Amino acid sequence: MKSLDSTTVVQIGIIVKDVEKTASAYAGVFGIPKPEVVPIAGDAFANTNYRGGPSTAQGKGAFFDLGPVQMELIEPVGAPSTWEEFLRTHGEGIHHIAFKTRDMGKAREFLASQGMETIQQGGWDGGQYAYVDCSKQLGLILELLHSD
Amino acid sequence: MKSLDSTTVVQIGIIVKDVEKTASAYAGVFGIPKPEVVPIAGDAFANTNYRGGPSTAQGKGAFFDLGPVQMELIEPVGAPSTWEEFLRTHGEGIHHIAFKTRDMGKAREFLASQGMETIQQGGWDGGQYAYVDCSKQLGLILELLHSD
Repeated sequence: MKSLDSTTVVQIGIIVKDVEKTASAYAGVFGIPKPEVVPIAGDAFANTNYRGGPSTAQGKGAFFDLGPVQMELIEPVGAPSTWEEFLRTHGEGIHHIAFKTRDMGKAREFLASQGMETIQQGGWDGGQYAYVDCSKQLGLILELLHSD
Repeated sequence: MKSLDSTTVVQIGIIVKDVEKTASAYAGVFGIPKPEVVPIAGDAFANTNYRGGPSTAQGKGAFFDLGPVQMELIEPVGAPSTWEEFLRTHGEGIHHIAFKTRDMGKAREFLASQGMETIQQGGWDGGQYAYVDCSKQLGLILELLHSD
């Protein structure tokens, strides 16, 4: 792989302190229904790994489908996670943009060859994700998504 | 207006220290050509207003069209601007997400009624923009875009 196999942004992730409150505000501003708040990384599929070690940290999420891009609000629950770290060090804000990749392993290898290391990975019932810290090179965290 | 008249994200804006260097990194990661770096708010159409007063601050920009969403890299030049303020207070990172609005005035009025104030506005040869600080309510800055 000489570059990422996707250039289509599919999701923007925002870290918030209170997902119920912020999801209500989004629903009001965009005139759309408030989605149900759901647990993130809270089940047997999570298998969360943060900076090289297992983590039981979770999140509470709300997902808004805004055209072709999904907005994901995440309230960190517990630690350690990139979500908790971001809230603690940056406060609320835009945490990541996500791309779907066909080969997660090769995508991570390619990014690592550019000095961009995976800081958190895990899964859900139907897929896997990896957060890759590209702060120094791209000014942000990339999320790679793969659906089974 | 009881809600924004657009729910389609059209742009993600990222503040960077060195736009030439970061644009090269993006081009490499995504396997796409590096766009030309262009001046932002540097001409007679700019008419920049920042927190209630005129500003001669500018930016250097690079624009990547990634599917339906454009990635905009902005290196602040001079001050005061929301770009310079973000870099100084947050460091590099994702600064805004943008929506096209049909009626900029009504959109700004609606957001102001929700406690979300315009912190910077201006134009270019063909349109106007406004950055609205929704940090407290939505955890981010919204940009409204209007093409003439």
